[in-house]
This record gives sequence, structure tokens and C-alpha cells, in this order.
Amino acid sequence: MEPKLETKCSFTYKAWLGKISSSRKFKVVGDDACDFAAAECKHGLGDLAVDKNENGDFTVNLAVSDQLTAESFSLVGAADSLTITGGDKIGLLYGVYKFLALLRQNADITAITNITKNTITEKPAIANRILNHWDNIDGSVERGYAGRSIFFRNNQLNYSAERLTDYARLLASVGINQICLNNVNVYLESAKLITEEKLPDLAKVADIFRPFGIRLIIAVHFESPVLLGGIQTADPLDEKVAQWWQNATKLVYKYIPDLVGFLMKADSEFRSGPAAMGRTQAEGARPIAKALQPFGGIIYWRCFIYNCMQDWRDTKTDRPKAAYDYFFPLDGKFEDNVILQIKHGPSDFQVREPNSPLLGAMKHTPQNMELQITQEYTGQQKDLYALAVQWHEVLEHPVTETRNTRDLIGTDKEIVALSAVANVGDDENWTGHLLAQANLYAFGRLTWNPNLTPKQLTEEWIACTFGNNPKLLAPLTEMMLQSRSVYEKYNAPLGIGWMVNIHHHYGPSVDGYEYMKWGTYHRADTKAIGVNRTGIGTGYTTQYQPYVRDMYENIATCPQEILLYFHRLPYDFLLKSGKTVIQHIYDTHFEGVEEVEQFIKTWDSLKDFMPQVAHETVKERLFMQLENAKEWRDVINSYFYRKSGIADEKGREFYL
Amino acid sequence: MEPKLETKCSFTYKAWLGKISSSRKFKVVGDDACDFAAAECKHGLGDLAVDKNENGDFTVNLAVSDQLTAESFSLVGAADSLTITGGDKIGLLYGVYKFLALLRQNADITAITNITKNTITEKPAIANRILNHWDNIDGSVERGYAGRSIFFRNNQLNYSAERLTDYARLLASVGINQICLNNVNVYLESAKLITEEKLPDLAKVADIFRPFGIRLIIAVHFESPVLLGGIQTADPLDEKVAQWWQNATKLVYKYIPDLVGFLMKADSEFRSGPAAMGRTQAEGARPIAKALQPFGGIIYWRCFIYNCMQDWRDTKTDRPKAAYDYFFPLDGKFEDNVILQIKHGPSDFQVREPNSPLLGAMKHTPQNMELQITQEYTGQQKDLYALAVQWHEVLEHPVTETRNTRDLIGTDKEIVALSAVANVGDDENWTGHLLAQANLYAFGRLTWNPNLTPKQLTEEWIACTFGNNPKLLAPLTEMMLQSRSVYEKYNAPLGIGWMVNIHHHYGPSVDGYEYMKWGTYHRADTKAIGVNRTGIGTGYTTQYQPYVRDMYENIATCPQEILLYFHRLPYDFLLKSGKTVIQHIYDTHFEGVEEVEQFIKTWDSLKDFMPQVAHETVKERLFMQLENAKEWRDVINSYFYRKSGIADEKGREFYL
Repeated sequence: MEPKLETKCSFTYKAWLGKISSSRKFKVVGDDACDFAAAECKHGLGDLAVDKNENGDFTVNLAVSDQLTAESFSLVGAADSLTITGGDKIGLLYGVYKFLALLRQNADITAITNITKNTITEKPAIANRILNHWDNIDGSVERGYAGRSIFFRNNQLNYSAERLTDYARLLASVGINQICLNNVNVYLESAKLITEEKLPDLAKVADIFRPFGIRLIIAVHFESPVLLGGIQTADPLDEKVAQWWQNATKLVYKYIPDLVGFLMKADSEFRSGPAAMGRTQAEGARPIAKALQPFGGIIYWRCFIYNCMQDWRDTKTDRPKAAYDYFFPLDGKFEDNVILQIKHGPSDFQVREPNSPLLGAMKHTPQNMELQITQEYTGQQKDLYALAVQWHEVLEHPVTETRNTRDLIGTDKEIVALSAVANVGDDENWTGHLLAQANLYAFGRLTWNPNLTPKQLTEEWIACTFGNNPKLLAPLTEMMLQSRSVYEKYNAPLGIGWMVNIHHHYGPSVDGYEYMKWGTYHRADTKAIGVNRTGIGTGYTTQYQPYVRDMYENIATCPQEILLYFHRLPYDFLLKSGKTVIQHIYDTHFEGVEEVEQFIKTWDSLKDFMPQVAHETVKERLFMQLENAKEWRDVINSYFYRKSGIADEKGREFYL
Repeated sequence: MEPKLETKCSFTYKAWLGKISSSRKFKVVGDDACDFAAAECKHGLGDLAVDKNENGDFTVNLAVSDQLTAESFSLVGAADSLTITGGDKIGLLYGVYKFLALLRQNADITAITNITKNTITEKPAIANRILNHWDNIDGSVERGYAGRSIFFRNNQLNYSAERLTDYARLLASVGINQICLNNVNVYLESAKLITEEKLPDLAKVADIFRPFGIRLIIAVHFESPVLLGGIQTADPLDEKVAQWWQNATKLVYKYIPDLVGFLMKADSEFRSGPAAMGRTQAEGARPIAKALQPFGGIIYWRCFIYNCMQDWRDTKTDRPKAAYDYFFPLDGKFEDNVILQIKHGPSDFQVREPNSPLLGAMKHTPQNMELQITQEYTGQQKDLYALAVQWHEVLEHPVTETRNTRDLIGTDKEIVALSAVANVGDDENWTGHLLAQANLYAFGRLTWNPNLTPKQLTEEWIACTFGNNPKLLAPLTEMMLQSRSVYEKYNAPLGIGWMVNIHHHYGPSVDGYEYMKWGTYHRADTKAIGVNRTGIGTGYTTQYQPYVRDMYENIATCPQEILLYFHRLPYDFLLKSGKTVIQHIYDTHFEGVEEVEQFIKTWDSLKDFMPQVAHETVKERLFMQLENAKEWRDVINSYFYRKSGIADEKGREFYL
């Protein structure tokens, strides 16, 4: 069952699509092709929109033009009017949302006039902008911290159509155009989503999302031919298996003709897959990819494969190496419509990781970089954690001396898709922690434009949600931008990761995963901590391009905040900061708590700029975060004090 | 859900009541009052019993006589006959089981003749010989390692009457005369066992157990007046609450007139209780006790109360002190029909604990010493662990200079009841691990006669189950008697306890409970380990009588195997064995694994003395145990090596 937060999380279903204030009246004009966009525009304007027979102060002209590419739009302004042109209906819709967002963010007439002085043209950076729900068909949500599923209950599609429409609008407003409703961990009942039993219901959800330019993906079970087809094997080289996938896929496209395709987690964490049958991942994907080709379908194939039954005594095997070891040799061997879905880091959405060396390494296989919006290891939507800051680092992470990860993103480049695990549930405000909405917002916007900075993204969300009063905007932006660093300070130190309570992953447990089979070890002893992952260690660094390899190999050039990911160091090792490793651990853990205390003060000062219920729900979470931060501080510091025997330079209290 | 063992556990439903071989034919004779005992005798004799019209070689005369006390019996032998006399029908039944057990254990004619030469008279040491099932009404079993409940499914009584009859016979054959079917953790559905909704079904189970001399106990919920009665409060001083308990109890006795009474876990591990309402435990028990008095009913009131939300930073609070602190001041304040149910140790059924200082301390309040047959912390019926050895130590544990705990047991003494948590489920052999049957057997026999030695108990069970061939009996007895020491060797060292994986309690996790709220801390640092529980430490030792207090206070007299329960000691502290603490840890953990390897060899040598299926199922478990022992060895040794930095004197391998 999913963990259920007990706090009331009320604010608004509308999230950042809130009410716009203006003294102007807007008239929306356009031909039949623009009907849906016009309706959405009027919906967004609310009572500022006037009927076509009335006089408005400002005219919004809508048009579709094949001069623009699909999904793109332009806004061309004049004194009292604006023309929004889309390359297609969906592009037009995006243009409308852009216009509405600008209105929300600049809620006065001067601002609107300024906006409309300049022509704005936008197109998405890539075609595949994807949200992955980890919703189970029983209604629970794996790693969900915002209530139960908005799609499923009791092994069926079961939802409020009104709420899903709101959700589709929310996602479209930030550029998301693909969604997978069901968990990548597919079990028998969710495997049936591709059968006659469930497809009619699923098709109705597709109908809700379609006008918003959002198409469905279905996560499928590798053993489907066995589970659903009654075939003896799921061996991808078996002709009956190929035939079964063809028939199954045909049926799916009969119900959902614009389906994006399938998503597969195979050979991963006890999921079955081709490896168990002695087949490669490329062979495993082939029959499914081929079945999708007649329909223009894609299969997203996850690369999160590693030995989750590792003997902790084994110091040769190194989990971060696994994905590269499995997939790099297969470059070019996949069908063209297979897109490899690669987690941004080689571990698993930790607070601090390097990028996966697989990203950009494969030249003949398109890639989908997977991020995680749901805060599994990053505070579970009890703690404030603005992911935009971390994602910015991910995008800036070098691949070679001249290219960073952002440079890989593009329709004709290595990374053709961006996906993320949703942080949404049936809590009234969608995300449990109200400010965690900003993470969903930021992810969508980044898929559209990866050049947006954390500051821009955070300010946009705040202005859309609470308005643009600088007295709110400046301190709240600062607090949110700081939140990743604060969480990192009281979490596992220097990039080492994983020091969490097992299974649920909230709260500290330094040895929680240390003697287990998951391949996640810090190997701290009385003198030192960390695993040497250089060429003379596990060899993980050698999977990177030379520039990055050398950066991480060398203690002098390895960024301090990730030093223990790559190097085993004694507690008295002197960091560039001038502090020893152990003193760094002690200091950051005290600082983290103090900074959360400062968050509470900052938040208190913002009380007058938002509805009371919004202020209270976040305040409640900040107090939870304070408790969590203290627990981290005391457990981590006491653990290392007990282990190293080294006292704090400042003589602060540890617990024995 | 309960953990489900995956192994096939087949052997026999009949457990130690197996087939008897003899060349003689037995004729069973007795009047009408002896009918049930006669039927049981013939059932036990199987095809050795002849009809009353046939000629037997040996006559078994059954009789009931008021010359003997209730539940007692005598066996008086002659050349070709035996007279079994019971003080009542149940005493007669016990006499019959005694006769059958002797036959099973001595399966030849000479032996039988020898038996019948001497008069045997027996009576039970105490009147209350109790098995506590922790079965949930949904069919799961809390801390159950032998399948699902034999009583419940889907919130209902749901069982095989044939199997329950077998079970009743099994329990009666070792002297158990009271049983509680439902978990002490009572939830809404099981709370309803005292209502019209469930009582008719429960009465049918009472009917099955009754002829075997076994009466039911019902575990009840403290909040029953609220949950079931719709009253606003469960405050024991509220007259409506008292009235509700009277009505409820009357109803229960209407359906089950010979019910023993109720069992209550209150104010314990998140269970509600009188403390929450500012009432003492004595006040809490009173209205329920009074409601039971008209029916001669008892309430067993558990003393397992402690702060399970302790801050691990708090070094003043010491969980082992809790039960004494709560209950000792209340001595004499309870109603006469309240019996306090006290776990034998102050912690929670660890491998090594001192006895609870509460046992024997209260002079005006009858006590029920609670043991645990189900192997929660002792190998979960995957690892071999003969509890008789540990229970022997519990009974031998001193209370004063002149009395040990065994001396407290008796109808007119402090301990008037013995109870234990059952290790039984719907696995075919009842207990998952076939040899774990011996623990159920030993507990029953000890309630009847606490003077039986571990060796006697183990030999009896082996002989009943597999026969008395010395080639089997001697090595298997030795192996089983050794098993507690072997498990202890690879477990937490020197009585420190608790180094287990959280929640499920199987396998090592040295810091698993170290930074949690459960009050179970070893506080190991780079120099030392343990908590000082002496008068200058937490003061726990001062709860004992002076003789015991002084023994534990003084490092020189504190038994070595429990030293770290009472004292914080440096790793280089020299034990009486001549080893340092750290070297003791290393050595015992290597020895433990080696001794399990020896178990496997021993077991292999016994293959020809038992059915193949019995041999295989145990062998499978022994291999699981070997894996478990290795995991314990390596985790514990590596943990302490990493923490202390002290190398093994023998240079064996640790893992970093």
C-alpha cells in the first residue's frame, strides 16, 4: 500500500492555472479549427472573457497555419489585440496557454501591453515530453506521496472525468504530450490493460487527454504472452510470441489509434525479461517493436538493470556500472522504434549523483532521459526540495569537453525524449506538499525548453500560483532554490547516497542498505568511507568519455559535493573547503537544520500573500521537515562520531 | 500479511502422536464415565486395539475416582494389565495419553512390561497451562512461521473440525488445558468475538476442545465498550463501561459457559488502555474482572508496557525497567481474578535475557509467566532452536539466594499460570520446521512438570516422533540441545540482543533498531559497546532482589553470556574465558557457522531412521540456517571490525 500522508493538503485543483485579475475584457476570435483552443482560452480568462457579441478591450485572434511546424506557435501583438498562431491545433493550444501564463504572471495592463509589443515564437525542444505515473491498478501509487491514484481503483480505471480534464489541462499548459498511467512494475491485473477487458475503459481516458495534445503510453509486462496469451514462453525469438505481440498491438491500436506505444521494465528488480531466457535486451525488445511499427508506435525500454541480489561482501561488482555494461555493447542493435529510457544517474534518483555514462555514449540508439519528480529519496513531499536545481546540474553535466547533457537533447540528437516519474495523487492540491507542484511545473517546462534556469522556472510557478508581488516572489524563490542544498546538507554526505530507512526510503539509516543485496554500500569503517570507483578501483569512471573520466578520477578535480561517490577517503582528509571530511559532515548537518528553521521564519513572513489554507498546509510540512532534518543530523553525526571517535571541533552534542 | 515459508513442510498432522508398533493386542475396558478416554485410548492404539468381544494380550482398565484430585491420574500395572485411574474424566484422559506416550517411546513388549511394574501417579504443577495463538481473524498469524491460521479466514472462524480435533488431542497429550485463539493485538473484527455475531461460531470451537479438557480464553480489546457498545468512553471508572462489560460477559458465558476468561494487551505498543485515561492498570482491569467474577472467570492482564516512542537520544529511559515500574507499585490493588501475564524477560523474547524482576516480586498478585514458542527472534522456524534449553535457564534463574523461578510456580505460589505464544499454523506438520514441534511439546510438558530437564523433554519428543533407536536418539538429542547455543553464537553477542532486521526480525542488522523509537540500543562506538544498567547506570539492576542485583551489578559475578546486557565494556575488555570482548565476538561467530555445518552432517547421518519426506524437509531448513548463520557471522564481524578497527587474532576474513 502507498504511504498516506495525514495532513490536509487543500489549496486548489487548478494549481498554477489560477484566476487572472485584470480590468480589461477579452474577446476571443477564431475559425472552427480553433474551437478547442478558443474554449480553453475563455476558460482560462474566466469572467474576463466577453461573448462574441459584446465589446472587449482586447481581441485575441486565434489561427492555425502550416507556415509553422507542429506543436509550435507564435504570439504577435498589437495595441489592443494579439494574434496567436499555431502550427497545428495543439501548437495553437500551447500558444493560448503561453498567453494565459503571461497574463497570470503579470497581472496588470502595462505588463500585458509590454508582452504584446514583441513577437514570441516557440517550439518544443523535442517531440517526446513524457510523464510516467507509477500508479498501480489497485489504486495505490508506488513511491506516491500525494494520496491514491487519480486513475485507478480496485483493478479498474476509476476516476473523475472532470479532474482528469483539469489534469490534462495542467500538463498541456507546461508542454507534456505523453503520459503513461500505469506503474512500470506491471502485475497481472495491469498487464490486462492491453486486453479487451480493459481497453474500452482506457480508450475513454485517451479521449479525455487527446484534445490537450496528450497521448497515452501503456506499461506492459514482458511475460504478457504467457500471462495473457497462454503461450508456454515469452522468449522473444519464438515465432508464437512475435505473433502474439502483433495481435495484441493491433487490438490496442483499434481502441487507441494515436497511442504513443509501450513502456517496458524488463530484467530489473525481479521483473522477468529476455536475460532470463539467454536473450539480449535488443532481442527482447524486437518482437514488440516490430509489432508497433505498422502503427508508428514506440517502445520505451528501461535501462535500469542491475544485480539486485548482490552479495554485499562482493567488492568487485559495482552497481553504477551495470546499465552501461548491459546496453552499450548493444548500440545499433535495436529496432529503430526502440527508445532506451535511462535514469539520469547511475544509482537511483539520489540527492547527488553523476550523470549516467550511457547518456550520449550510444550513437545509434535514441535515448529517453528519465528524471523523478516524486520525491522518493528527496523528502517524500514532506520536505521542501526544488528539483529544478538538481535537474539544471544534470543538464549541465559534461559529456565531453565541449558538450554537456543539454546539448544532447533534440529531435535529431542522442536524447529524443525526456520523461519523469509523476508526483501526483488524489490529494486536493495534486502533490501533497503544495510547493511540490513547482517540480511538476518545472519538469514540463524543461521538456519544452531545457534552457530555462531554475530561477526562471521557480519564479514562473510562484507568479502563476501566488502572483508576482516582489515581496513574495523574491524570498520564496530564494527559499525554494536553496531547498535542494539544504536537504543535501542533512542527508548522506558528499554524494555517498542511500543512507535511508529500507523499503520506504524516508529518514536516516546509515547502515540500512549496507549489508543488503541492493548493491549500495558506503563501506565506512573507523578510518575512512566510500568506494573507490576510479580505474584502480571498481573501474566505473572508465565508462565515461575521457574528459569526464579524468575529472572524476582526480581527487583535485572531482567536485567536492560528489567526492565520496568516486573516492574512498579518510575522515581526516582535507577538502578544498579547508575542512576535514568528518568536520564537513558535522558542520553541514548542523547547518541543514538551522536552514530549515530559517525556512519556517521565511514562510511565516509570507502569510499575507496567499490564502490561509495554502499557508497552513505548507507550514505543517515545514515542521515535519524540521523533525526530519534533526533526525538526520543526529543520526548521521552520532553514527560517524561513534565510528570515527573524532570529536566535533566546535564541541557540539552527539549521542551515545 | 504473515511471512509465508516457501518450503514444503510435509510430515504428519499427527505430530508426536504417531503410530505405535507392538506385537500385543490391547483390550480397553471401562464404564460409561470412561467412554471418551477409552475412545482416545483405542484411537491411539490404532490396530493394536481389539474389540470388547475379542481376546487381548493385555487389558487396559479405565476408571475415575474421587480419591484423586482433578486432572491427576495413576497408572497401576500388573503382568498383563494396567489400570489407569483419573481424578476426573480429564485426569483419566491424561493418564491414557501418558500410557500411549510410554508405548510410543518404548516400542517393545519388554519395555511395556517394565513400565507397568511400577505405579505412576502424576498431577499437574499448576491449574493454568496456556497456549496463546497470535492468529488474526483475517487468517494471518502475527509472528507466524508455519503458514496461515488454523482457526480463521476472512474475518470468520473457518477451520477443519478434523484438524482441530487432532490439534486438541496434540495439546491435551502434553497437558495444555487453556487456549486463546486470537491475537493479543485485537482489532475491530476480532474484538467482535465477544458479540452475537461471532460467539455462535466460537462456541463450536469450544465444543471441539472441551472433551480434551481444553477451555477457551478470548483476547479482548480495551476499547470494546466504544467499538462495540457505542459508548463514548472506555474509561474503567465510568459506570456505563462497567455495565457494558457485565452485559458482554454474560453473553459470552451464555455461549461458552466454561470459558476461562479474557486476555488483555492494554497500553502496549499503540494499543489503547487505562493509562491514556489517567487510570492505573489495576483500575483498568477492575470492571472487566468484576464482570467475570460471577462466572468464575479470570482476566490475564499483560505487563508488556513500555514507551515504544522513546527518543533514541534519551539515555535515561531504559525499556527493561518499564514493566516493574508500572506494575510493582500496584501489588495488591488488583481484583482477585486478575492474573498478571509477564514475559519471562524484560526485553522481548531475545536469545539471551535475564528474567523479569517483576516475577516473584509481587506477593499479592498472581502471575502468569509468558514464554514464546514461535521463534520470532530465534530463527523463525528456519533455524533450529530448541527452546527447552533456554526455558530451563529461565526456570533456574535466581529470585533470591534460596529460591529460583521454578520455585515460584505452583497453585498457591506466585506463578499460578504458564503461557506461551504458539508456533503453529496450517503447514502440514503444524510448525514449519519439523523439529520445531519439539518446542510445542516441551512447553506443554513443562507446564505439567517444570522439573523436566531439556534432555528428558527432547528425548521424549524424539522417541515419540521417530522412535527410540539409540543411533538416532543420542545424536539428534545432542544436536537439538546444542542448537540454542549455536544460534546464540552467531546472533547478537553476550546478551546484547536486538541486532535484527526491523519489523520482520529475521537476519542481522546491527544498527537496525539503534536509532529508532523502540528503546533497544547497544550504543556501540569505536571503543565500547553496551548500556550500563547498574545502580550507577540506568538503575535497572536495583529492581531485583539483593542477591540477583549484586550478581548482575558486579562484572566479576555477572554471567559472561549476558555481560553486555548489564555493562558497557570496551572491546579489549578481558572476559573470564581469557578472550577479549572483540575476539569473543569474532570467534563465536565463526564457531556458530561451523557448528551449523556439523548439524548438516549429523542430520545426513540420520537419514535411514525416518521417512524420506521428514528428512528432506529438515535438511532444506538446515541449509537455510547455514545461509543465515553465514550472514550473521559476516555482518556482525564486519560491523565490529569496521567500528573497532581491531583485527582478528587468527587473521580471518572480514568485509569492507
